[in-house]
Amino acid sequence: MLSTMQPTPLLISTLLRYGTTAHGRSEVVTWTADGARRTTYAQVGEQAAQLAHALRDLGITGDQRVGTFMWNNAEHLATYLAVPSMGAVLHALNIRLFPEQLVYVTRHGGSEVVIVDNTLAEPFSQLLEQLPAVRQVIVNGPVEAAVLEALRRPAHVRQVHDYAQLLKGRPTTFDWVDDLDDNDAASMCYTSGTTGNPKGVAYSHRSNYLHAMAAVATLGSTQADRLLVVVPMFHANAWGYPYAAMVSGSTLVMPDRFLQPEPLATMIETEKVTGGAGVPTIWNGLLQYLDQNPHDVSSCRMLMVGGSAPAPSMMRAYQERYGIEIIQGWGMTETSPIGSLAFAPAAAEPGSDDYWSYRTSQGRLVCGVEGRVIGPDGTEQPRDGQRVGEIEVRGPWITASYYSNGEESEAEISAMAEKFDDGWLRTGDVGSLTEDGFLHLTDRAKDVIKSGGEWISSVDLENAIMGHPDVLEASVVGIPDPKWDERPLATVVLRAGASPTAGDLREFLADKVARWQIPEQWAFIDEVPKTSVGKFDKKRLRQRYAEGDLSVLRAD
Amino acid sequence: MLSTMQPTPLLISTLLRYGTTAHGRSEVVTWTADGARRTTYAQVGEQAAQLAHALRDLGITGDQRVGTFMWNNAEHLATYLAVPSMGAVLHALNIRLFPEQLVYVTRHGGSEVVIVDNTLAEPFSQLLEQLPAVRQVIVNGPVEAAVLEALRRPAHVRQVHDYAQLLKGRPTTFDWVDDLDDNDAASMCYTSGTTGNPKGVAYSHRSNYLHAMAAVATLGSTQADRLLVVVPMFHANAWGYPYAAMVSGSTLVMPDRFLQPEPLATMIETEKVTGGAGVPTIWNGLLQYLDQNPHDVSSCRMLMVGGSAPAPSMMRAYQERYGIEIIQGWGMTETSPIGSLAFAPAAAEPGSDDYWSYRTSQGRLVCGVEGRVIGPDGTEQPRDGQRVGEIEVRGPWITASYYSNGEESEAEISAMAEKFDDGWLRTGDVGSLTEDGFLHLTDRAKDVIKSGGEWISSVDLENAIMGHPDVLEASVVGIPDPKWDERPLATVVLRAGASPTAGDLREFLADKVARWQIPEQWAFIDEVPKTSVGKFDKKRLRQRYAEGDLSVLRAD
Repeated sequence: MLSTMQPTPLLISTLLRYGTTAHGRSEVVTWTADGARRTTYAQVGEQAAQLAHALRDLGITGDQRVGTFMWNNAEHLATYLAVPSMGAVLHALNIRLFPEQLVYVTRHGGSEVVIVDNTLAEPFSQLLEQLPAVRQVIVNGPVEAAVLEALRRPAHVRQVHDYAQLLKGRPTTFDWVDDLDDNDAASMCYTSGTTGNPKGVAYSHRSNYLHAMAAVATLGSTQADRLLVVVPMFHANAWGYPYAAMVSGSTLVMPDRFLQPEPLATMIETEKVTGGAGVPTIWNGLLQYLDQNPHDVSSCRMLMVGGSAPAPSMMRAYQERYGIEIIQGWGMTETSPIGSLAFAPAAAEPGSDDYWSYRTSQGRLVCGVEGRVIGPDGTEQPRDGQRVGEIEVRGPWITASYYSNGEESEAEISAMAEKFDDGWLRTGDVGSLTEDGFLHLTDRAKDVIKSGGEWISSVDLENAIMGHPDVLEASVVGIPDPKWDERPLATVVLRAGASPTAGDLREFLADKVARWQIPEQWAFIDEVPKTSVGKFDKKRLRQRYAEGDLSVLRAD
Repeated sequence: MLSTMQPTPLLISTLLRYGTTAHGRSEVVTWTADGARRTTYAQVGEQAAQLAHALRDLGITGDQRVGTFMWNNAEHLATYLAVPSMGAVLHALNIRLFPEQLVYVTRHGGSEVVIVDNTLAEPFSQLLEQLPAVRQVIVNGPVEAAVLEALRRPAHVRQVHDYAQLLKGRPTTFDWVDDLDDNDAASMCYTSGTTGNPKGVAYSHRSNYLHAMAAVATLGSTQADRLLVVVPMFHANAWGYPYAAMVSGSTLVMPDRFLQPEPLATMIETEKVTGGAGVPTIWNGLLQYLDQNPHDVSSCRMLMVGGSAPAPSMMRAYQERYGIEIIQGWGMTETSPIGSLAFAPAAAEPGSDDYWSYRTSQGRLVCGVEGRVIGPDGTEQPRDGQRVGEIEVRGPWITASYYSNGEESEAEISAMAEKFDDGWLRTGDVGSLTEDGFLHLTDRAKDVIKSGGEWISSVDLENAIMGHPDVLEASVVGIPDPKWDERPLATVVLRAGASPTAGDLREFLADKVARWQIPEQWAFIDEVPKTSVGKFDKKRLRQRYAEGDLSVLRAD
């Protein structure tokens, strides 16, 4: 039986129209070298209309791609709203990728027009020669003549525009394209894969819309909130904040390029920020700064953190010293990105161990995201908070496949297909789920040690070993074993002057991890190699082992 | 360009699965003569599975209709979840309709199985003879032998079951039907139209799902909330509370048949209710009771009110005496029902006139509901908070047409079609919209006076006239006028002993309403006729005028 309800598609233009009228007085505060620059949602809506007119004039029709190479600011927000609402597809380029990756994703996505912040125009100009599809560049803010010249140099670049000049005098309303299918692409992001080329995700209007509603419903943001969006708009939709804000009407405080603790503390204090979002490094730096340089941050109640797990000590410090809850979220580019959020259940007594075990988990899957745990033998595991396996998720804002422009190699196509399992996304994260949907991650799938049909968490072992007072750092990787497939190899950096033996460390682990998980093979090294973002570089460690570059001791 | 996201349908089964696991420990409290009866969301989920097995056994397959004739209680909630999730369609019958209307809607909807609360079994048995499609009746709770016999009497009733007995021992999980189109019907409700037969609305899985998300995002309910759902589950989805609670995990306090002020006050006090929903009459009665019989209602922060506009004095009294915000909502069966909610904008200073003018409006349209104002000349009016017209709305949880079972008359079909205007629902409400989406209703379309191409609000005129100290009641209706199409006729009930003339009253209005709106025709009457729910019966007044039953004075 068919319903009698309107089949209204879920479009970004609905969010744009709603946010810029219902919340027309809400502010977008962009930080500058001279402090706050203010604009209202209503003005951002007018700017979005002007931008859409300008882009039409530059030939953007249908589902063409428009790229951005920008910080978080009001102009980037206008672009977020305008491009999908005119039926085109927004590709926010991740300015932090290596140049060759940036060239790859820009070419792969196919942007023909790119909007660039003036402070990023110089690095962008260095890529431009390799981006033959880009025919128009729009620069937000004044640039020096040399940079302008560099942008104009490639033959394929037809015009370079000044953003403000380009928009000036254009109509402040636009007839947004409402006859789209809500499964049409609205925007795209690329994963920053550690192996191979980045992979593209094309978000739909529907997925962005539903994600925004879920974000507001779960975070409880209102018009009274003033949210500091540190997470970049070129990272997985800025965790949904721009579109969610159109629903809630929360004022957005956009730090632009001022991501250091000092300006962030000033923004929180002077803009009476009530909440924010960023990676652990950002909030960690801010904590240290605040401890040394007192600011009034009493307006702030909550900071969302994602990207990697925050240290529980930092979470407690914020809560105890500043009354700020650090709320951990888990997700990835492929999940739009909100998969889970670590609010404690109402039944957990604040401050209790129970409470903190929820708060330091990766959080509860939000309504709309279904999860399952696939164990070492490929079967679904019970959701008992104990049994571990690779986490798989599905739902209306989860990727079903990667974006193909038809130019991928067979190997790439096959690697992309491997990330999906019968309609579920394989997250590459290993952990458990509780009955009430809380996610506890223990490892990355590629780092977990597959030993005798069971999995050993490299992270758990590392934490246990680092609990020894003589150990400065420890990283555990799986190495081939003829009998057990893999066994853990513990690489350990000792504190100066300390000299425990492998046997001592094994004994130390005896009452901390299961007997069969205790490593037999140990290597004492000077330093654990790190990736560019400061994580243990386990790929490099496995390589060094394979090359015979580690002196391994056996202790049984 | 197609997105790469999963096209997951938005189904009630997703809400069911989520709510009964993520919020498995949340409670459903059902009030009884002996106080609270408690069950958890997890248990309601198990009960829903058992009910689904039972209904399958009774032959419910595909999109057959299952009716309920029930109060708000845990069993009704299980039915709300089970029926749509097994692919069937829930029809919650409005027990308050007149018997002939009840028979009409039950036959029109087509329920084959009806679940009936024991305390409603006797009145239901009186209808049953006229409901030949109903072949199975399930009674929730014990009934007397005579009632059971009455239920068994009609030849078409094959079996009468005891709810608990029927479910007992059945599996507590069910393979919910997930391959539905989310535009398929999930549930249906009928309008209680004042003229003609009630009209049916068939909500879709998608509309219910999106409505639930919007309710949580706008109301900000969380797992810590304990919500008193007084609005009946047979009225427009109980304003979305049952499905929204699956998202938020708020505990539900269900009053069953105990809707009097005394048990409601006890529920709020003993169950530490944080919020609730009901019509003005309910909260008005509660206020008077609380003023006389102090209860600790300090846990309660907000009561949502809808159905008709609450008196501003009641709103202020709750806020000042009990710290409870009365939040007005506007909607109708055809809007699922949430159209708008009257939270004041963040910029309005609490307690200021500005604040109260927002709070006493019908509220801001929620994200997803678009509105427009169609003026007397059929053109769209600006959203300036001044220009009035009929309010039209559209969106994914707004009705596109009424449910037809193919048996309607030509006249009915044509009347049903008239409620829609080029994809918009004509609400029958007259008022204005502000730029930021706040709705101010001034009249019902059928009561507004169409005079010389302009509209006069009967309600505004009545309020102005009732401002005169000698006037007890005043009701204004439009009467035919050869020159102006319609002119207002003011019918006035004077206070005992008072004797102002029509001229005096006209003079009183001179500085209160526009000159051309002042009535020339007046009738002094003993009492304004009222409808069964206590509203001015303007249909009766117009009839009395047409029949020459009013003595009309002219004053120019």
